[in-house]
Amino acid sequence: MPTPYDAMWEKLNLDLDAHAGLLSVLGKFYGDIYLTQQGRLKGMEYLDFVLSEVHGLRIQELQEAKAQGKKVIGTFCVFVPEELVLAADGIQVGLCAGAEAGKGEAEKILPRNTCALIKSFVGFKLSRLCPYIESSDLIVGETTCDGKKKAYEIFSDYAPVYVMEIPQMKNACDRDLWKAELLRFKEKIEEITGNAITAPKLREAIRKVNDRRRVLQRLNRLRANVPTPISGRDVLLINQISFYDDPDRFTAKIGELCDELESRIKAGEGIVPKQTPRLMLSGCPMAVPNWKLPYVIESSGAVIVGEESCIGTRNIRDLVSERAETLEEMLDAIADRYLRIDCACFTPNTERLDHISEMAKELNVDGVIHFALSFCQPYTMEAFKVEKILKEAGVPMLSIETDYSMEDVEQLKTRVEAFVEMVRK
Amino acid sequence: MPTPYDAMWEKLNLDLDAHAGLLSVLGKFYGDIYLTQQGRLKGMEYLDFVLSEVHGLRIQELQEAKAQGKKVIGTFCVFVPEELVLAADGIQVGLCAGAEAGKGEAEKILPRNTCALIKSFVGFKLSRLCPYIESSDLIVGETTCDGKKKAYEIFSDYAPVYVMEIPQMKNACDRDLWKAELLRFKEKIEEITGNAITAPKLREAIRKVNDRRRVLQRLNRLRANVPTPISGRDVLLINQISFYDDPDRFTAKIGELCDELESRIKAGEGIVPKQTPRLMLSGCPMAVPNWKLPYVIESSGAVIVGEESCIGTRNIRDLVSERAETLEEMLDAIADRYLRIDCACFTPNTERLDHISEMAKELNVDGVIHFALSFCQPYTMEAFKVEKILKEAGVPMLSIETDYSMEDVEQLKTRVEAFVEMVRK
Repeated sequence: MPTPYDAMWEKLNLDLDAHAGLLSVLGKFYGDIYLTQQGRLKGMEYLDFVLSEVHGLRIQELQEAKAQGKKVIGTFCVFVPEELVLAADGIQVGLCAGAEAGKGEAEKILPRNTCALIKSFVGFKLSRLCPYIESSDLIVGETTCDGKKKAYEIFSDYAPVYVMEIPQMKNACDRDLWKAELLRFKEKIEEITGNAITAPKLREAIRKVNDRRRVLQRLNRLRANVPTPISGRDVLLINQISFYDDPDRFTAKIGELCDELESRIKAGEGIVPKQTPRLMLSGCPMAVPNWKLPYVIESSGAVIVGEESCIGTRNIRDLVSERAETLEEMLDAIADRYLRIDCACFTPNTERLDHISEMAKELNVDGVIHFALSFCQPYTMEAFKVEKILKEAGVPMLSIETDYSMEDVEQLKTRVEAFVEMVRK
Repeated sequence: MPTPYDAMWEKLNLDLDAHAGLLSVLGKFYGDIYLTQQGRLKGMEYLDFVLSEVHGLRIQELQEAKAQGKKVIGTFCVFVPEELVLAADGIQVGLCAGAEAGKGEAEKILPRNTCALIKSFVGFKLSRLCPYIESSDLIVGETTCDGKKKAYEIFSDYAPVYVMEIPQMKNACDRDLWKAELLRFKEKIEEITGNAITAPKLREAIRKVNDRRRVLQRLNRLRANVPTPISGRDVLLINQISFYDDPDRFTAKIGELCDELESRIKAGEGIVPKQTPRLMLSGCPMAVPNWKLPYVIESSGAVIVGEESCIGTRNIRDLVSERAETLEEMLDAIADRYLRIDCACFTPNTERLDHISEMAKELNVDGVIHFALSFCQPYTMEAFKVEKILKEAGVPMLSIETDYSMEDVEQLKTRVEAFVEMVRK
């Protein structure tokens, strides 16, 4: 069926037939997982709309911005400081990495023992299915894990790639390295956009990104209510869309949704009955449209009340200090904020364990489901430590390792249902 | 059967029965793979002896040194600067990581999708089978790969672990970080040994380690002869033992072996006929007693003439400059030398590709066998780049992914034999 975006997609060199197939599957999948939910918030209509137009209207906006000389920077990681991109009048977007599209192509240039997220972004590119990758003037990678670090080397044969080095410890020399990397990135962004990053511009960008973090923090505080007023699936979707949508629009819309949540809480209404087992997800990021496990969990009689993940609390926990006045002070504030990230790339990474314990307590969870993509060594290995500290805190944990295929859904369902029964009070 | 070392092993808290079983299997394996070789060099008797006493006499030497107040530093990586350990009157040794011993125990605290080397060192510890680990006053890990980086966090519950951060790029800020890490390591070693590292001591240590590198470089030059005068298995063993034996003794003995090689070359003698296909190994390190693939290759009608690996040329290619005079200059020379290492932990890592091309040419190889441990992401991913540059150079490559089990020997043999037939001129 022709769409108003066909010409745009063709210009972006997408594989039109395969792309139409992808959108159709995605639409069906979204309908089954999202639109069948009962008692959904009115504010979610906005998210439904954004998702339905994620390869359409949003891409058109990017193209219009590009026509006006703006540059699009694509990333896969919460370490890439959007503040610098925005301050140079650029647009930062997340890239497609949550579906099996192009897996066969990806496995021709990557080992099969590579995590699904990496195979996905490479597959999306090789199969010409991601309009975000095709719209990006620069793709910014990082050295957070061996898989991505080495995959970017291969990926750079197919797209313009720039790699930021992320330190692996948090000593003084790591702070120095990270600051140097920030400055190198700033120069690169200034070069690509042709715009100098000034103090007023950076101050504005810091505020803008902080505002988005603040509204998501508000959302997280509200959902912590018993009974929780919103499904975990919906909050995951909101977090996912935070990487794609225009920051100001997104912040405003989520603010309205939070108002609605407050009314619901005042009315004593929940999305599920009060006694529903409350679970927290912890582990690898779930990129759009990787909704498999949340769907399995929430159709097994439990509700998800927290996502300890990059597409979740890791990306919104810390703000950049707004007290900085000079450009140099702002850059230092950015360096400090990003180095507080508790990614499994750090050793040791006890901050993450502390955060998980705190979240489990604050959210009143009955259990934690640890999610790791198969072959993701940092998170599969940390799962052993997470299980240990949760055990000490008396919180049951289920460790899941999976990928993007649908083959294990029934098996996951059996395991999750047994876990939910076990944690039910 | 009682041995003169039983009391020592018991004191080291080894599992005596399991350890006796391990030594017995190792002896049989060594006999089959090494002692059956025809026309072996007389100088290899020394290596046979060292290997036969690797858990006996050498451990006894370590215990005697410890009784005199010396400290033993155990490592798994060529990034740990032995010069600093020796300059503080310490002894640096490699640790057991080349056999499946303790795999079941290791998999209780590590994901099954972890490379065999990591599961091995954890398994050796949990099963109380490695007298080197038990003799170590400190185990020095590093951040070269996700698997080891995160495994050391877990391992530190069982042994005294110190982790060095290895940068992931080679820019100025990386050199600064690495120098800072060297200084932190120097302080740690001084603290553990109680000895200050002085300029004269460090000069002597630099010379000692360089001498060992020089004699191994000489060995590599000699074996490049056509026909090659020594088997690849034997050179691998020499490289393996270089991580365990006393450096001065080792250097002297390998010098004698090189003299013997020179005589053999003068006499026009080779370990195999001149027309035997010459192969190079490239990829992951082969820790003692991981001789599976070399044995398969050399019993398939080919001979190995080079090991592009940490237990191979990576550890001996570069010397530390001996022109430095002050302590500070020597530390800089050490920092520079170690940062030249072409480990797959770096991005990009084009130096390794250049080295592989050069080696293939200099050694007159007919083909390259790339060896990666299953789940070793850095090397499995680089294998794709290695294959590409070798293809451009007209050198055939076979990519092997395996572990320490013997289950795939027949399958490997089939693939290797086909490859050898293909490259035979």
